[in-house]
Amino acid sequence: MRLSKMYIRTLREVPNEAEIPSHIWLLRAGMIRRLVSGVYGFMPLGFRSVRKIEDIVREEMDAKGGQEIHMSALQPAELWQESGRWYAYGPEMWRLRDRNEREFCLGPTHEEIFTDIVRSEVSSYRQLPLNLYQIQTKYRDEKRPRFGLMRSREFVMKDAYSFDRDWEGLDQSYRDMYDAYERVFTRCGLVFRAVEADTGAIGGSASHEFTALSEVGESEIAYCGSCDMAATSERAECVNDTPSDEAELPLEKVVTPGTKTIAEVAGFLKVDEKQTIKALLFRVYGEAEESVSYVAAFIRGDRELNMTKLVNALGVPEHAVEFADEAEMGAVTGSVGGFTGPVGLHDCKILVDSELVGLKNLVAGACEKDHHLINVNYGRDYKGDIVTDLKLIKAGDKCPVCGAPVKMARGIEVGQVFKLGTKYSKSMGAYYKDENMNDQLIIMGCYGIGVTRTLAAIVEQHHDENGIIWPMSVAPYHVIVTVVNTEDEQQTVLAETIYQELLKAGIEALIDDRKERPGVKFKDADVLGIPVRITVGKKAAEGVVEYKLRKESAFSEISAEAAASDAIAYVRAELSK
Amino acid sequence: MRLSKMYIRTLREVPNEAEIPSHIWLLRAGMIRRLVSGVYGFMPLGFRSVRKIEDIVREEMDAKGGQEIHMSALQPAELWQESGRWYAYGPEMWRLRDRNEREFCLGPTHEEIFTDIVRSEVSSYRQLPLNLYQIQTKYRDEKRPRFGLMRSREFVMKDAYSFDRDWEGLDQSYRDMYDAYERVFTRCGLVFRAVEADTGAIGGSASHEFTALSEVGESEIAYCGSCDMAATSERAECVNDTPSDEAELPLEKVVTPGTKTIAEVAGFLKVDEKQTIKALLFRVYGEAEESVSYVAAFIRGDRELNMTKLVNALGVPEHAVEFADEAEMGAVTGSVGGFTGPVGLHDCKILVDSELVGLKNLVAGACEKDHHLINVNYGRDYKGDIVTDLKLIKAGDKCPVCGAPVKMARGIEVGQVFKLGTKYSKSMGAYYKDENMNDQLIIMGCYGIGVTRTLAAIVEQHHDENGIIWPMSVAPYHVIVTVVNTEDEQQTVLAETIYQELLKAGIEALIDDRKERPGVKFKDADVLGIPVRITVGKKAAEGVVEYKLRKESAFSEISAEAAASDAIAYVRAELSK
Repeated sequence: MRLSKMYIRTLREVPNEAEIPSHIWLLRAGMIRRLVSGVYGFMPLGFRSVRKIEDIVREEMDAKGGQEIHMSALQPAELWQESGRWYAYGPEMWRLRDRNEREFCLGPTHEEIFTDIVRSEVSSYRQLPLNLYQIQTKYRDEKRPRFGLMRSREFVMKDAYSFDRDWEGLDQSYRDMYDAYERVFTRCGLVFRAVEADTGAIGGSASHEFTALSEVGESEIAYCGSCDMAATSERAECVNDTPSDEAELPLEKVVTPGTKTIAEVAGFLKVDEKQTIKALLFRVYGEAEESVSYVAAFIRGDRELNMTKLVNALGVPEHAVEFADEAEMGAVTGSVGGFTGPVGLHDCKILVDSELVGLKNLVAGACEKDHHLINVNYGRDYKGDIVTDLKLIKAGDKCPVCGAPVKMARGIEVGQVFKLGTKYSKSMGAYYKDENMNDQLIIMGCYGIGVTRTLAAIVEQHHDENGIIWPMSVAPYHVIVTVVNTEDEQQTVLAETIYQELLKAGIEALIDDRKERPGVKFKDADVLGIPVRITVGKKAAEGVVEYKLRKESAFSEISAEAAASDAIAYVRAELSK
Repeated sequence: MRLSKMYIRTLREVPNEAEIPSHIWLLRAGMIRRLVSGVYGFMPLGFRSVRKIEDIVREEMDAKGGQEIHMSALQPAELWQESGRWYAYGPEMWRLRDRNEREFCLGPTHEEIFTDIVRSEVSSYRQLPLNLYQIQTKYRDEKRPRFGLMRSREFVMKDAYSFDRDWEGLDQSYRDMYDAYERVFTRCGLVFRAVEADTGAIGGSASHEFTALSEVGESEIAYCGSCDMAATSERAECVNDTPSDEAELPLEKVVTPGTKTIAEVAGFLKVDEKQTIKALLFRVYGEAEESVSYVAAFIRGDRELNMTKLVNALGVPEHAVEFADEAEMGAVTGSVGGFTGPVGLHDCKILVDSELVGLKNLVAGACEKDHHLINVNYGRDYKGDIVTDLKLIKAGDKCPVCGAPVKMARGIEVGQVFKLGTKYSKSMGAYYKDENMNDQLIIMGCYGIGVTRTLAAIVEQHHDENGIIWPMSVAPYHVIVTVVNTEDEQQTVLAETIYQELLKAGIEALIDDRKERPGVKFKDADVLGIPVRITVGKKAAEGVVEYKLRKESAFSEISAEAAASDAIAYVRAELSK
């Protein structure tokens, strides 16, 4: 392709909207274009890379027996009402009505649709196992779309669904997909970790997230340097502190004027924050619009609450939980802003972190302004409606498997695999007949890859201060031939010869034949990140050109023939990796 | 691919919902699946054929310098308000709001989006010409979705947009696309005609529709056997009958009890229907909700009204025009159901077919129950606010070019090319700077291919009473190897050998290794329409198999080696056509 004919517009300045490298460079390379917040279009080079990722995904899915189909983005509300998720999905779901006022959504995911296919078309054990997948546009009306392709409202996703006769079959399907994902992300040039993950709104019994490591990632993962424990921070189990063997002292109310925070009360009473109880108060919406209830969660003062664990413990959708208004909740439950404790609270659900059960003589709010209770003990002074792990893991915490100190890292979630089990087959009635003609629930798994997010993750891991450095597998073009001076006929002829030779060898080549200053061309080549650059300049008369890899700063002066054949060999070697 | 592992479900019965062959066979072959009215999913075999059509389109677009991009389906209302089409598009447009109540639509087409890209990113004449295209999902909330993929509410379309410096450039871009379309549809195996078309809601100055000929098509085309005139019936100009040289007789009111139709009044008054004037009454909505006006259209009694010409003459969107309520319109304009004529009507816009101007002494309603006027003459007795061609062409009418009798045919609109000119660049401000740094409007064209509708059109033209007969270029697989008895090892081994040989040669092959009765397998192979079938049966022991083309009824018994090599040669020859 000739750059002189190509629709391309690189930017010299960092666009205002962009904060992180992938967003900046994809915009500056003119590969994506923002239409409105969280909605992007793909320009010629950007779309080429997207299609390459799609083809890698397709090959690896097909290799595991996946069969590609293509379902609509429009989904009727009834299917989601059947599964119970029409309510559970919340405002992230784009909802719309057709001209007859029938309700639809734009699919944020396709469990319902695929379950519906299988329940009506699979009848016999002989049709199983089955793995159906699609690469398709998904919609999520994110509250805060940001970081370009990282969290957008319309995006390309590969979603696969496996259907098995039994749990052993699901284990096999899950392993197959896990393996396929490792190959996909490796081929895309990503450094990643597969970590245990929460099953969230999708539901199910087990899940792994594939996380491309990156400082700008929105996922936090906890992993152990000593054993192979690795999990998202949302999911990671926390080890409780050793129970105390102190004797229980008498409960006592003390005056603690103006000590609204844990730090303030610990300072005022001269105790460690570990000796205090932190309260977090929530309002929870029920399925009916008017139904509201209150929840108070208690954890040790130095801990952070893990919202995912809270939501899972309550068994409600995430969007149904919000921080309570102090006055409103106080009127109903007796809570007092800054001074709420578990003793004396009423008409609200009390959740207690399991660590608190073993600790003695703690400080907690007295549900009375400017007062705390000391020597608060679980069992004697208060009880929880639910007692469970509600803590967020942090660096240095004990590994739940081996006890070594946990490390934390950030990453971008590019894929996730789920064992759904019978969640959808049960709610939507997807059965098969076994060898004895008995009805059995189909056992399901689901498996997603964020295709456009993967593009962003690749750029996050592969760029420098001058632009993108594409891995060959997903580069929009393999080689760029830069003509320094298009007025010089010798340069033009030599560049053209090399270009044609590359094309003949099946290499995807660009020729920068624009009437632009050399500096502009070099800058653009760097921004675009084409893996190999062959520069045809003054030494064209001698048949000598410059050969340079984008990922290296050094270049060599070699003969035009050597440049072409080196490029061809290098590209082929990289692609066959 | 092994049919024993494949997700496939053919139907023995014609599904209730299906009326036309393409709909019936695509469902019976299990290639598509209905989710709700007008919304379909593509199953493995169906999606393979869709992708083949997409690739043919892509190749031909690229050959003409088209550059592929991919824009969002979500489009903000503001762009459509700028072009004026937010109102013009009517209820066919799926509209929705995001969580912040911002208005969006699901793109029924992308003129606004592409104009927006170009106005902000093209600044110089040196960036033109440009042809950008995408293959993407489109949404139209059809009033009556029907015929499967023929008129659906979510469908795949290729849309391209050309941007030129001047009208000569547009002519060239238009010709290029016209040529590309001829190649695309030829390669897809379609018999089609390119006919002049109305520019409808898209707007613009010239257009051709590519129509796959088919009895079940919704497009009617008029063409001439003597010259190359060909146009959609909506668009086709009509030739007026020879003006009359009769003297004008005095206007007279006559009693015509109960003669509400043209046939009744002509019979009662014993005149030819050509001597009468037919009235058609409409209510027209303005942009403001409450603004309503009335229109009366008059044509010769034996003619049919052409709604497209009426709507174009009024300069309003199609959805703004509906048949008037007799009583309601009568109260305002003096019209009388069944007895309305142009004389005496008031407070409504009067449209007169140009043919009526030259005719003398006609019969028209008297705007009075059970009365008509005779000897009605244009000019003396009534005038039109608009006088233009409002007639629908019919077989036998004079060709507007050469005068020979016109023929009519039906077809499926699979593509359309438009010269948009400056319609969008003007309303949305898309300029480039010319050599003298003067701002010039960009001259645009747009070009669509209904990808999924093309799939249906192919089946319409390629099927028999047993199923689909795929052209090789778009067949989901090229060859099917049918094992008559999978319990017979000799058959299984021989079939496997042939199958592997085909795969090795790069042929897309299926092997029907299911434990099914031979009759089921033959029936399925016919329904699926795979171009070549090699049947391995009893003569496997002798190394002899059956070789059969789907499109022929005859088969031959040949050696297994010959069958494989014949199939390979045949597939390659067909694909290189």
